Amino acid sequence: MVDIATRVYNHKWKIDPIVRSLIDTDFYKLLMCQSVFRNKPQTDVVFSLINRSNHIPLAELIDEGELREHLDHIRTLSLSRGESTWLRGNMFYGKRQMFRSDFMEWFENMRLPPYHLERKGDQYELTFEGKWHEVMLWEIPALAVLMELRSRAVLNDMRRFELQVLYARAMTRVWEKIEQLRGIDGLGIADFGTRRRHSFLWQDWCVQAMMEGLGSAFTGTSNCMIAMRREVEAIGTNAHELPMVYSALADTDAELAQAPYDVLSDWHDEHDGNLRIILPDTYGTQGFLDNAPDWLAGWTGIRIDSGDPATGAETAIKWWQSRGEDPNQKRVIFSDGLDVDKIRELHSQFAGRTNVSFGWGTLLTNDFRGLVPNDALAPFSLVCKAVSANGRPTVKLSDNPEKAMGPTSEIDRYKRVFHVGAQEPIEVIV
Amino acid sequence: MVDIATRVYNHKWKIDPIVRSLIDTDFYKLLMCQSVFRNKPQTDVVFSLINRSNHIPLAELIDEGELREHLDHIRTLSLSRGESTWLRGNMFYGKRQMFRSDFMEWFENMRLPPYHLERKGDQYELTFEGKWHEVMLWEIPALAVLMELRSRAVLNDMRRFELQVLYARAMTRVWEKIEQLRGIDGLGIADFGTRRRHSFLWQDWCVQAMMEGLGSAFTGTSNCMIAMRREVEAIGTNAHELPMVYSALADTDAELAQAPYDVLSDWHDEHDGNLRIILPDTYGTQGFLDNAPDWLAGWTGIRIDSGDPATGAETAIKWWQSRGEDPNQKRVIFSDGLDVDKIRELHSQFAGRTNVSFGWGTLLTNDFRGLVPNDALAPFSLVCKAVSANGRPTVKLSDNPEKAMGPTSEIDRYKRVFHVGAQEPIEVIV
Repeated sequence: MVDIATRVYNHKWKIDPIVRSLIDTDFYKLLMCQSVFRNKPQTDVVFSLINRSNHIPLAELIDEGELREHLDHIRTLSLSRGESTWLRGNMFYGKRQMFRSDFMEWFENMRLPPYHLERKGDQYELTFEGKWHEVMLWEIPALAVLMELRSRAVLNDMRRFELQVLYARAMTRVWEKIEQLRGIDGLGIADFGTRRRHSFLWQDWCVQAMMEGLGSAFTGTSNCMIAMRREVEAIGTNAHELPMVYSALADTDAELAQAPYDVLSDWHDEHDGNLRIILPDTYGTQGFLDNAPDWLAGWTGIRIDSGDPATGAETAIKWWQSRGEDPNQKRVIFSDGLDVDKIRELHSQFAGRTNVSFGWGTLLTNDFRGLVPNDALAPFSLVCKAVSANGRPTVKLSDNPEKAMGPTSEIDRYKRVFHVGAQEPIEVIV
Repeated sequence: MVDIATRVYNHKWKIDPIVRSLIDTDFYKLLMCQSVFRNKPQTDVVFSLINRSNHIPLAELIDEGELREHLDHIRTLSLSRGESTWLRGNMFYGKRQMFRSDFMEWFENMRLPPYHLERKGDQYELTFEGKWHEVMLWEIPALAVLMELRSRAVLNDMRRFELQVLYARAMTRVWEKIEQLRGIDGLGIADFGTRRRHSFLWQDWCVQAMMEGLGSAFTGTSNCMIAMRREVEAIGTNAHELPMVYSALADTDAELAQAPYDVLSDWHDEHDGNLRIILPDTYGTQGFLDNAPDWLAGWTGIRIDSGDPATGAETAIKWWQSRGEDPNQKRVIFSDGLDVDKIRELHSQFAGRTNVSFGWGTLLTNDFRGLVPNDALAPFSLVCKAVSANGRPTVKLSDNPEKAMGPTSEIDRYKRVFHVGAQEPIEVIV
């Protein structure tokens, strides 16, 4: 029996919205948002889309009108009652009331600020200007919209069974990965794939497959909406935008050198336990750790997000030992460019020496490599970053010069201030 | 929105019937049924299920009560108005009114006769007794029910995503086969997979995938219900049961030697064109052709269903040449144990020398090999055959001694009458 009312209702849609909720975003965005809301509420920042894979002509693949419709739709979204209840009442990282009342009251009334969109050749210039705690919430939905519109552009030309077999192949691939991961004793792995997912439905499928296939080895998802809907842990701590903006706000080189620690000092006041995770690579991991205050060595763990991951983890372990800390009481979270072989390799190298966990991103939720002609669904490297704060440019160095961002003169200044020497370039796949 | 009425209606089902229509059967069954209805209406036959793969303990896998429910359900089926209209009005093999009024009137009122089911160890004895044109219609539904109940027994223990990935893998496999077939210039291939299909829905999926993936190279399906529903050609001509029963009815060795030609003489009166296809292997291809009357050499083609297929086709080509016929005007249909490599090989060997086509069965509609532990979904060799006619045992020799059937003394007598010498055994996979 055809449900005629549903069929007619479906016909009335003008678009099939990609982002349908303000919590279809990464959990750490909300943690950082609350922190910014509290500590830096008057900061004006600019976020900008950056397509590091400029061989992907986004403006040719994606219709500007359609892109605007999706972005406009996101500006209509507000927190639903159930979402608000979940954020207020759910236990995150073992803690209730993670989000304070003043933040929740603001968030419940928040709408995303305007965007600026302009076609430049075969790319789009997409920027967001405003108070930091508002525009920062554009990052994940903007990336999700662009990634999924690109997927749709490719899928648009495919026939029914081609589509079904495409997803059959992709499902088979994800499941084979899960079957390989199942063999790793003591594995802990979370989905970090929101920002560069193939599509929302696909990410949701991947999470459910991980739940069934890995059981308790699957520790949760960074995506709040999926965490709420699938009743799993929401996972995430903090990101580069915090030290980048704090650093841009520094008036002197001395203040700049101190900025990355100031960020974590604010974080220290707000969070404990598994939320005290250092992201050390914004301006070079080695220098950051060498100059870190001792209270940071007391933190729970470290997230390795650029450079050679094994080197990063060895550096962290040595650093803890040099500060009289036991690495076996610490946690190393790997989150950069992971796939099954790398996960298995890192797990076997570090399990037993420290607590290891993995934030698996693009190659979980967007591994469509080789599945269509011209590899037109291969993931690509799209980011949306804070590029300036109170009118000053931001800089990111990371442990891989291929991931560096900012004006050249500022990059040079930051390298000098943070004592960053020669770095080994590593190809950025995703 | 949940359609509550549909949900409640679905809950009321006692079983999920495997066979839901009398035309969920092979087209050649209906052609043969009409022929028997006309020429041998007073013949009493016994059909019997034979599990040639007796390592599959059907009676342990399949609950007897459930099996009875499905068989009982089939006995309630009658031709629907739309099915009757399709059989009466559709064009088959270029001809309208393929089924005559007297046959259709009988068929419209026909219900399948009782069955006899008894557990014998880990196997079932399942037999059907009655008038030939009635019990012959049990063959395909009985096989379909047993095959699908065995599939369900295995699937029953699987979780949701395991199931989804199982079908994803099976779909991927079928599609990869289709992609390989797409490269064969001038291919003509039909689905012959009803009798040993994984399930009805799966066969229906495979047919639709062939339609989209192969276009006009897909010539149709043997399954009448799917042919009607998907608006493709219904394909099939005649099978071993005709010469087997005609031969069993022979009173003398001389009549026996003539019986296989008598069958085709009746067929010759009823059909022309692409329905004049010889199935020569019932009692050995070489002897059958050597002794065949000249009017048979004028038939359109030959179907190779046992023995080495290339040898069978070469035998046919030589025979046509020896009778002054041009093989390029003839058709060779391969239908035994086909898969992509064999299809490709046979096509490249015979295309250009004769018209080639393929009836692809079990490895199209039931290739789940290697997809579950212990290969518990691998296809197996189940048949349902006429084992006696008017109280006399039937015999089949075929070109492969592994496929021979009947009492040993009768097999010896048939071998003598039909001058069958040494035969090379070939493993029967499906």
